Amino acid sequence: MKHLLSIDDLGPAGIEEILRVTDSFVEVSERAIPKVPALRGKTVVSLFYEDSTRTRLSFETAAKRLSADTMTFSVSSSSVNKGESLRDTVETIEAMGIDAVVVRHRSAGVPWRVAGWMQASVINAGDGWHEHPTQALLDCYTIRSRRGSLQGLRIGIVGDIKHSRVARSDIAAFAALGASVSVIAPPTLLPPSLDGWPVQVAPSLDAILPDLDVVYLLRLQRERMTEALIPSLREYRACYGLTASRLARLDPDALVMHPGPMNRGVEIDAEVTDDPRSVITAQVANGVAVRMAVLYLILGSGAELRLPEPVLSGTRA
Amino acid sequence: MKHLLSIDDLGPAGIEEILRVTDSFVEVSERAIPKVPALRGKTVVSLFYEDSTRTRLSFETAAKRLSADTMTFSVSSSSVNKGESLRDTVETIEAMGIDAVVVRHRSAGVPWRVAGWMQASVINAGDGWHEHPTQALLDCYTIRSRRGSLQGLRIGIVGDIKHSRVARSDIAAFAALGASVSVIAPPTLLPPSLDGWPVQVAPSLDAILPDLDVVYLLRLQRERMTEALIPSLREYRACYGLTASRLARLDPDALVMHPGPMNRGVEIDAEVTDDPRSVITAQVANGVAVRMAVLYLILGSGAELRLPEPVLSGTRA
Amino acid sequence: MKHLLSIDDLGPAGIEEILRVTDSFVEVSERAIPKVPALRGKTVVSLFYEDSTRTRLSFETAAKRLSADTMTFSVSSSSVNKGESLRDTVETIEAMGIDAVVVRHRSAGVPWRVAGWMQASVINAGDGWHEHPTQALLDCYTIRSRRGSLQGLRIGIVGDIKHSRVARSDIAAFAALGASVSVIAPPTLLPPSLDGWPVQVAPSLDAILPDLDVVYLLRLQRERMTEALIPSLREYRACYGLTASRLARLDPDALVMHPGPMNRGVEIDAEVTDDPRSVITAQVANGVAVRMAVLYLILGSGAELRLPEPVLSGTRA
Repeated sequence: MKHLLSIDDLGPAGIEEILRVTDSFVEVSERAIPKVPALRGKTVVSLFYEDSTRTRLSFETAAKRLSADTMTFSVSSSSVNKGESLRDTVETIEAMGIDAVVVRHRSAGVPWRVAGWMQASVINAGDGWHEHPTQALLDCYTIRSRRGSLQGLRIGIVGDIKHSRVARSDIAAFAALGASVSVIAPPTLLPPSLDGWPVQVAPSLDAILPDLDVVYLLRLQRERMTEALIPSLREYRACYGLTASRLARLDPDALVMHPGPMNRGVEIDAEVTDDPRSVITAQVANGVAVRMAVLYLILGSGAELRLPEPVLSGTRA
Repeated sequence: MKHLLSIDDLGPAGIEEILRVTDSFVEVSERAIPKVPALRGKTVVSLFYEDSTRTRLSFETAAKRLSADTMTFSVSSSSVNKGESLRDTVETIEAMGIDAVVVRHRSAGVPWRVAGWMQASVINAGDGWHEHPTQALLDCYTIRSRRGSLQGLRIGIVGDIKHSRVARSDIAAFAALGASVSVIAPPTLLPPSLDGWPVQVAPSLDAILPDLDVVYLLRLQRERMTEALIPSLREYRACYGLTASRLARLDPDALVMHPGPMNRGVEIDAEVTDDPRSVITAQVANGVAVRMAVLYLILGSGAELRLPEPVLSGTRA
Repeated sequence: MKHLLSIDDLGPAGIEEILRVTDSFVEVSERAIPKVPALRGKTVVSLFYEDSTRTRLSFETAAKRLSADTMTFSVSSSSVNKGESLRDTVETIEAMGIDAVVVRHRSAGVPWRVAGWMQASVINAGDGWHEHPTQALLDCYTIRSRRGSLQGLRIGIVGDIKHSRVARSDIAAFAALGASVSVIAPPTLLPPSLDGWPVQVAPSLDAILPDLDVVYLLRLQRERMTEALIPSLREYRACYGLTASRLARLDPDALVMHPGPMNRGVEIDAEVTDDPRSVITAQVANGVAVRMAVLYLILGSGAELRLPEPVLSGTRA
């Protein structure tokens, strides 16, 4: 694996491989000293043109646990202010001799262009509304660790599908692993066409709720209201929010997921997050291990797609 | 020790314990390679909702000298801008598997709430006007290293007592170690009541100055003038500034202290900082060692409250 | 070597020494694990009062490859906002026990003042229009590695000489190593006098172009136009830009250089950067190795001005 740009590049076998390697890094994370020397001497740069402390911290934690050096190149403090083009920035970073770049950008496709300009590996940490593959991988891992497999599960993704890279990557990954995916959204928050998407549109959250194995709630950006795409947060919650009363109708083994940060009281009620079916905190924790797996497969001896002995051994607590 | 939230939690014995461990880390700091592996594999996150490079750098230097990994979560670059609640932020950080959080926030009590939400340890790096316990510990350490002990010393704290977390923590710590503490301030910069505070109010700086063993000057925020709490900086200096002429009336063994950053020419004259009685630079240096001691006692094998052999040994220059 | 403040302090022998040590670090940079333990336990602080991610990342990459700890003190997030003086900031950093400070400031001379206030070493990373010595060193290294030596080379520096610290440091370094340096600029972008500068003024770029061994293009700040120092970007490009048609008149062995970030289409045409004579990317790569050499000579066992065995040996890929 040279880059991680999209879920489709991986295919079901590639996804499964990453999830298997993630198992090892979950084990590493539980050690007293959760650190392995796998990527010692490698440098991973975060190139974030959009604010995201959550995702950046998760990648940097993953890189540090693999003993890589990390550096942050955030747009507001960079030469970008002097009018430097994206390409110059990328060539400058590459010339400094780094090994991988984790890119977030508000425009779809930027990670592909970056990958075309450098020898180093590129990991897509979110490009516009397009893809966010490591989010999808950690979501798959979280479901798999609770339910054994995604095969045959019925997953409903609720909310602003149109503007969501999480939705696009999740739909691709969930479908690749055999789940049946439905989307539930106001018509204004659905893409103009779903042709070719491996999903069906559910008529309403209330209609499909009792049949779901996983309810995946998307964050509602407040600007959707000023753009007149939804009438009000109150009405949105009434139709699409996972309220305490809707939670009561959910299967006892179902899972509640959210990529964070949450709008409590809008797409999810505060008390729902404390329910044992909520795996939202586990998603964050698994995010670090999944990103360790991705970095390891890309920069480590990933050709064999398995961890060498020295990484798995080590002093236990 | 699980958290460090306030000086009162420590009591005299707890403070003394930290000062004793600090001695070891002062010794470490003087080595050619001032680094010990005590916290290898531990991750310390700075969660700063208020700008403070001084305090943040001091904690991060301390953590790095203990071989811990450090990460910064500063409010301006975080999801807080997306409306994420403090609780979500804390739960996200915790889910990534970190060991301690150093919290600064403009609201009193926030570190206690954070501690209630996480399994990780919490260190209060300043909450509103309330507490700043590591500042008080480094101040105690600085006085003790010059004067042997605080027992019976007469300490005067001068300036904006009302709005100062440094004053509150210092008063508690100095009194706990047996010092006699006076406050000297315009009535507008004293709290409405000092009931229960282990201090007396001195009539004026000039009256008490020759009797003091320690003059502790607080930073005067310039906004106190626009708030009409002081008539002018000039008049403030005339009554409460440690001027060169006042310095001449100070005991030859007395100490001059300031938590920084200073307003030279307001609460302290520029030439005073160069006087041998000024220990302001020593305060900063001791700050790193005190914070190493706190982190070590919280995250190391602190149960025994003494340093294990491997930490104290090591190659000397 | 205690500080690196200006090129003139080094003299030809000092520059040559740094270039020789740089050879070793270029070799280190090409290893599978491009890291040496030379500065383990040392702390290098970036004190940047002016935005420059490129230079800061280059220094921090260099420091990390030498196993030093790094910290960033950037002005916008610092106590400077509270009115802290430069001197207080420097004394605070010094008191924390750091070993070297890399300073960038918009006022000429600041690194000298900083060096006067601290025991730690100071490296000038750019002060006003005055000096940027590590840029000059990496430029010398880049030319030397392509042409063997600077002795007798004809180097033309094109653009805003007046406001350029790069120009001042480059002129001093190129002349010290025996090159013949010309400047080519609109009269408004030349200093009032060039008395004592080891340069001649060329009548026009077109007149001198075929005779040059190196064309060094300076970045044109767009504010020069609003200041009425140039009539328009279009006219600037017509007279001073390295266009594709001018490139055709350049010697086949000549070099094209730029300190970055570039204004493509102004001082340099986009297609010129892809020409094999362009060494702009090599400049960036050499920047890391040159800064490793400077840090090593200052903080390592630099007295002997040669690398100890343990640094040069190590596992090769």
